[in-house]
Parts: sequence; C-alpha cells; structure tokens
Amino acid sequence: MRAPTRKVILGFGITIDGYIARPDGAVDYLKMTKEAAKLMHDFFATLDTMVMGRKTMEASLAMQAADGSEPPKGPWVSYVFSRTLPPGERNGATWVNDSPAAFVRRIRRRPGKHIFLMGGGELGRSFLEADLVDELFLGIVPILLGAGIPGFPASFPQRDWKLVENKTYGKNDVALRYARIR
Amino acid sequence: MRAPTRKVILGFGITIDGYIARPDGAVDYLKMTKEAAKLMHDFFATLDTMVMGRKTMEASLAMQAADGSEPPKGPWVSYVFSRTLPPGERNGATWVNDSPAAFVRRIRRRPGKHIFLMGGGELGRSFLEADLVDELFLGIVPILLGAGIPGFPASFPQRDWKLVENKTYGKNDVALRYARIR
Repeated sequence: MRAPTRKVILGFGITIDGYIARPDGAVDYLKMTKEAAKLMHDFFATLDTMVMGRKTMEASLAMQAADGSEPPKGPWVSYVFSRTLPPGERNGATWVNDSPAAFVRRIRRRPGKHIFLMGGGELGRSFLEADLVDELFLGIVPILLGAGIPGFPASFPQRDWKLVENKTYGKNDVALRYARIR
Repeated sequence: MRAPTRKVILGFGITIDGYIARPDGAVDYLKMTKEAAKLMHDFFATLDTMVMGRKTMEASLAMQAADGSEPPKGPWVSYVFSRTLPPGERNGATWVNDSPAAFVRRIRRRPGKHIFLMGGGELGRSFLEADLVDELFLGIVPILLGAGIPGFPASFPQRDWKLVENKTYGKNDVALRYARIR
C-alpha cells in the first residue's frame, strides 16, 4: 500500500514505563528544553492539522489557565474529538464526533500537510484500532512514574513499524519516529 | 550517593507499548539479529550474576524445550526468585526467596561484576519499589502488541534516570541505557 501524502502521525511524550500523565492527569514532570522546542518547531512545520481527544484539550486549557500562557498558535486547524460534548466551533477548535475513519477520509479530500494526532490515550487507541496511524513520533521522558495514564491503552490489534529516526535531544530525552509497515 | 561498583541492571526487550510478552507469555515476535547478539555478548561480559523471576525462568525453559536449544552458558551464576517454589539448586540455578534488598546486600558482600535483573515484570517492580535498580537497559522492539504483559507493572514510587546510551541496532531496534539519579 502506498503511504498517504497526508500522513496521520500519532505523537506524544511518554515515560519509560509508558505513561502520558500521572494518575490525576498532571504532566508537571515534562520540561520544555530549547532542543525540545526546536524539535517540535521543525515537526510542526510539516503539519497543518491537529487532532486531539477531549481530555487532551482540557489538559491543555488547564495548563494555560495555570501558567497564564496562550494556546499555541500556528498555521494549522485543530479538531477535538468528543463523544459527550456537541460538535461545533469552540476554544479555537472544531469539535467533532465522527468516526476516526470518516474524519480522516474527509480531511484527506483536500490536499495539505500531515495530520498530527496528539496526546495518545483513548483517541490514539481508536485510530490504531482502525489502522489509521501512518507514523509514531514519541519523545521518551527519562522517568519511571510507577503509575499513570497509559499512552497506548489496551486493546487493539498488533501493528508493526519500522524505525525511521532515533535522535537524542536535550540531555536525557530520546525522539523515536516509526513508520507503519502494512 | 556513590554508584555501587556491582550495579543492579534491569533489562529486557520491550515493545513500543511497553510489553515484554503477549498476554499468554509468548515472545515469538522477538528476532535475534547478528547486531542484537553482539550487543548482548558485550553486555554479558560486564556481568557475573543473573537474576530472574520464576515466570521468566519458566518461559526460558519452555523456549529451550520448543526449539531444542541449550540454556545460555557463561561465566555467571543464576538466581531465580520464587515465593511458591522451595529454595535450592535446580535447572542450573539457585532458587531463592529472600527479599530483594537482603539478596542484593548478600551478593554485594563479595566483589564481582554487575548483577543483571532480566525480564521485567513483577520481580522488576519489587526491585524498583526497594530502589535497588542502578541501571535500565532496554531494547525497544518496533511493535505495538496492543495487549500483553507489562514490562513495568504499576505500582511503585517515581524513579528518575539519566540517559547514558542510545544506540540503534539491527534495522529497527533501539537500545536505551539509563542510570538512576538518586
């Protein structure tokens, strides 16, 4: 199968033990270094569409409220998946409740850049279950939390990958990029 | 705290989604490449003590029975932790039921090389809980299994690490080595 021109890239920061947050959703252990900012800046330049689940959106809004920061702005459009909240335009994003497959089909009708599925967790599982993820982009955080919210919650069918990039950044962080083998 | 001269190194092959085996314990997806064999050979030269849990030992014996292979031989002694089976010499190993802390204290009374805690899972958790692990040595397997036996089962207190090695080996495998920050 030919790789789609508008790839769906699932990405997030993950602890050595596979978590994206503490059990209560806190990500206070994440540190934004200059190298991490550069890596994300370069990565974001390849995207024009951000996709996240409601919980990731709410965590972002809470972090912005806590530190008084602005939501990240860029030449991209944002979509938030929710089964419980109504579709429509809110918080600078389009809220949707399509199936992941219908959503990706619809986005790909227009030409454009890659689609970033950010945050992992339950929405990531839905996309993996439907085999819609073309790439993984993981930042491995040098911590064992010991408990937390899993980045790849069970269960979905086995998916195999090839490594396309392995990069150490900052002092202790590792970025791994994988492409789907179908 | 000074790093001990005989380090306890916890190591195993882990899938991108954090598993050490399929739900039934099978590890048929692991492939031994020439590069992986070289990496392990060099690593094993730094050790003289192997430690594993009963389930890891039983999985090794089952694999050897299935493919007719010999147990790996080397200039090391092997210990198997079990709460259910009696202590003593069996299967080329010494079976023990000490606490991890008492065991490590006892081993370290003698000078020697590093101590390899292999296999992850429940015994790894006990060692992490007692903060006995000085290094992690992980081989990241380019697969999302979607379900399985976790390499770092919850729960234990947060443990922070610094990255000491990041190496791509074979085509798609990544070896990460971390040292404990205490």
